[in-house]
Amino acid sequence: MGKKDKQQEFVAHLTPREEDFSQWYTDVILKTDLVDYAPVRGCMVVKPYGYGIWELIQEEMDRRFKESGHKNVYFPMLIPESLLRKEAEHVEGFAPEVAWVTQGGSEVLQEKLVIRPTSETLFCAMYAKWVQSWRDLPMKYNQWCSVLRWEKSTRPFLRTSEFLWQEGHTIHETAEEAQEETLQMLEIYRECAENVLALPTFVGQKSDKEKFAGARATYSMEAMMQDGKALQAGTSHNFGTNFAEAFQIQFLSREGKLEYVHETSWGVSTRLIGAIVMTHGDERGLRLPPRVAPIQVVILPIAQHKEGVLDRARALAAELKAAGIRVELDDRDTYSAGWKFNEWEMKGVPVRLELGPRDIENGVATFMRRDTLEKGTLPLDGIADALKALLNDIHLTLYRQADEFRKARTHTAVTLDELVQGVQDGFVKASWCGERECEDKIKELTNATSRNMPFDQSGMPSETCVCCGKPAKKLMYFAKAY
Amino acid sequence: MGKKDKQQEFVAHLTPREEDFSQWYTDVILKTDLVDYAPVRGCMVVKPYGYGIWELIQEEMDRRFKESGHKNVYFPMLIPESLLRKEAEHVEGFAPEVAWVTQGGSEVLQEKLVIRPTSETLFCAMYAKWVQSWRDLPMKYNQWCSVLRWEKSTRPFLRTSEFLWQEGHTIHETAEEAQEETLQMLEIYRECAENVLALPTFVGQKSDKEKFAGARATYSMEAMMQDGKALQAGTSHNFGTNFAEAFQIQFLSREGKLEYVHETSWGVSTRLIGAIVMTHGDERGLRLPPRVAPIQVVILPIAQHKEGVLDRARALAAELKAAGIRVELDDRDTYSAGWKFNEWEMKGVPVRLELGPRDIENGVATFMRRDTLEKGTLPLDGIADALKALLNDIHLTLYRQADEFRKARTHTAVTLDELVQGVQDGFVKASWCGERECEDKIKELTNATSRNMPFDQSGMPSETCVCCGKPAKKLMYFAKAY
Repeated sequence: MGKKDKQQEFVAHLTPREEDFSQWYTDVILKTDLVDYAPVRGCMVVKPYGYGIWELIQEEMDRRFKESGHKNVYFPMLIPESLLRKEAEHVEGFAPEVAWVTQGGSEVLQEKLVIRPTSETLFCAMYAKWVQSWRDLPMKYNQWCSVLRWEKSTRPFLRTSEFLWQEGHTIHETAEEAQEETLQMLEIYRECAENVLALPTFVGQKSDKEKFAGARATYSMEAMMQDGKALQAGTSHNFGTNFAEAFQIQFLSREGKLEYVHETSWGVSTRLIGAIVMTHGDERGLRLPPRVAPIQVVILPIAQHKEGVLDRARALAAELKAAGIRVELDDRDTYSAGWKFNEWEMKGVPVRLELGPRDIENGVATFMRRDTLEKGTLPLDGIADALKALLNDIHLTLYRQADEFRKARTHTAVTLDELVQGVQDGFVKASWCGERECEDKIKELTNATSRNMPFDQSGMPSETCVCCGKPAKKLMYFAKAY
Repeated sequence: MGKKDKQQEFVAHLTPREEDFSQWYTDVILKTDLVDYAPVRGCMVVKPYGYGIWELIQEEMDRRFKESGHKNVYFPMLIPESLLRKEAEHVEGFAPEVAWVTQGGSEVLQEKLVIRPTSETLFCAMYAKWVQSWRDLPMKYNQWCSVLRWEKSTRPFLRTSEFLWQEGHTIHETAEEAQEETLQMLEIYRECAENVLALPTFVGQKSDKEKFAGARATYSMEAMMQDGKALQAGTSHNFGTNFAEAFQIQFLSREGKLEYVHETSWGVSTRLIGAIVMTHGDERGLRLPPRVAPIQVVILPIAQHKEGVLDRARALAAELKAAGIRVELDDRDTYSAGWKFNEWEMKGVPVRLELGPRDIENGVATFMRRDTLEKGTLPLDGIADALKALLNDIHLTLYRQADEFRKARTHTAVTLDELVQGVQDGFVKASWCGERECEDKIKELTNATSRNMPFDQSGMPSETCVCCGKPAKKLMYFAKAY
């Protein structure tokens, strides 16, 4: 059967990043057991280590959603064709990439159903039923679920047919409130990316070409990967009354008139895991930001057969766990210390602690921090607090490194040549006329797309469009994107 | 548009339980905003109040799963037809009730896919790839997701085409370990039902007729609803090497031989919410067990326009929240106190606290406990601890009431007449020959089915089968079931 006993030498065999970044990514996510390919076209299995990261992202995001007044719900995964077709732009955007259910049991369905690619239409159908008066507003709901888009080419976490995400859907009394909600959720994403995932991002508004199917305005946060490409890491949409008109979501206003609600939606997905890998990873493998690392500290007993070593290591693990640190004691005696060092480095555990007879004698543990590979010792007395400070510093260091990289790779272009040059290895900040023709031309020339327009529109590189030379209207970031 | 302003008198209009238990159930779940019908055949929308209960159930269960060494994963929702067909009994059991995806985008699929009705086949396919040696065992994974079964007649929470659940799938080195796992998970379900949901249950083994498609043995916990019918509230299956042989899940044993793994699976679903409603509810609506009540204490300020009342109520809400109590302050001034009393009673909030000018003067709050409708006062000083004790007592009281009901409605039958009589309003404990013919005959006569065989098989009512009179082999519970 070709089964091999796994007690073998540790060989990481990661493709060097400089040689082939894309292959490096695939190597890392497979070899660190984040994910595996499923025996279903374009789908992935999220393994415990990858799902552990997702659970921590969920926990952090979900708390922020609840604190800002949102409640979780669950809507069906199947959408009748007629419902999907109610909003014209929306169906045009999604119909080409949905999976169709045509048969239930032995019965051929009278009306085909799609597996949700997103749930605006179902939320709208229910909101139309639920809302009566201004007193019922706002309704601010969110769901954690999976969605399915029949993608042609797929890569785990970045683009798969099925993926995990959250989708928030809210309805409001006024346009102002809806816009406030749209921007609030974008800010929650940005803040969470910074403070939880150690990801610096560009936030701003998408162009009309790149906005969501059916939205009046789409805002995004864009992260820069180590190959200089953009990863759209979260979006927030203001629909205005667009869907409300298609679905007749009306309410009795304070003045007793029937009015349409103002609607938003917003989402982040397991793409964020891909963003973490491609932002922080290095030649040894993952470097996980401590706040979403399923294991924050791994304890490796050295010479664990010697009396007292394992007991002390277990006591240390228990102490750290009680202090709220996610700790793992690796007491496997079937692997060498060197093997374990390599494995945990590849898996990106932020801190490795070694504890041997001499450490115990000296009342210390030897640590290595994964971000900088620096080593040192920590007194066992009060070690939990010291580790928390260290984890915090690792988070800040990862963020700073990513932010420096991002700044170094963000170019300013006045001419088309400069733009063409700049998007080869990073983002380009440029003045733009606002016309789709220029976006199309830039895409054709460079494969780069418009990413978003920052809220602060000051400091345009020139007064004319980087592409056509007509008067510039917007400051726009361009980049190749995942 | 027929929109009505909601500021109107509170009218609950619950159908009396004695008149029509089934209609009472539907009234309660819809009017308390647990759930709504979706515009998709046989599917439901779980609304915030219902989903809040599910989140608390998840939290309690998930902690127990992790403490017993299980890890969460996520597998695709689509299963290729060929994979579903690999285990003969399994496909026979599930094929009639699956939804078929036959088209992706504009492409007609070469191989049809089913939306998972359960995920044994996918887990088996991945386990076959992942396991090499005994060192890789056990693998103990779980996923929280939705599954879809094309049901003919549906009722929210009890039986819907799509429903939320968790499915654990584990593989082990030995038969003993797999059996231990199967029983351990059943015990976790039973303990959680008792200590979290206040649900007494019968646990035991299912008959061959009633076991899961492809299992060697299925164990269940069965709860008794207020109409005396059984609700299967959780199952745990031991597959032996059945799926392992079909999927060739082999490992190198300690002796260096290729062996098949021993496999289990186990699950609970949103049915548990239906069980809570139908076990604890009364003529006024829900009575939620405190440990899964999204709101444990509701504070109603009385004469809230009077100076100091609202401020004191807000301070009280903040104090309770800080103490870890799930509290809501209902300061809506558009509803009367009487309206609010009725609404919160119907929604089953365990404790109502009233706080008016006189209460504040006396340094107390007036409480009503939803389980017994008893009222009293609590000193504001130290109220958080007093409320915790009260919530605990409410949990115990709900459990005791349900347990007394269960005992009173569990009958012993020696003759078939007694069994026919007994299943009209409850469970029947009887001796059984172990033959399917007798199960079929009892079903035909009474519509009751065999529920499960308790682990303690002592105290058989007679030495002969309740149905055929041949020598009895098993003590079995029979009941009509949801």
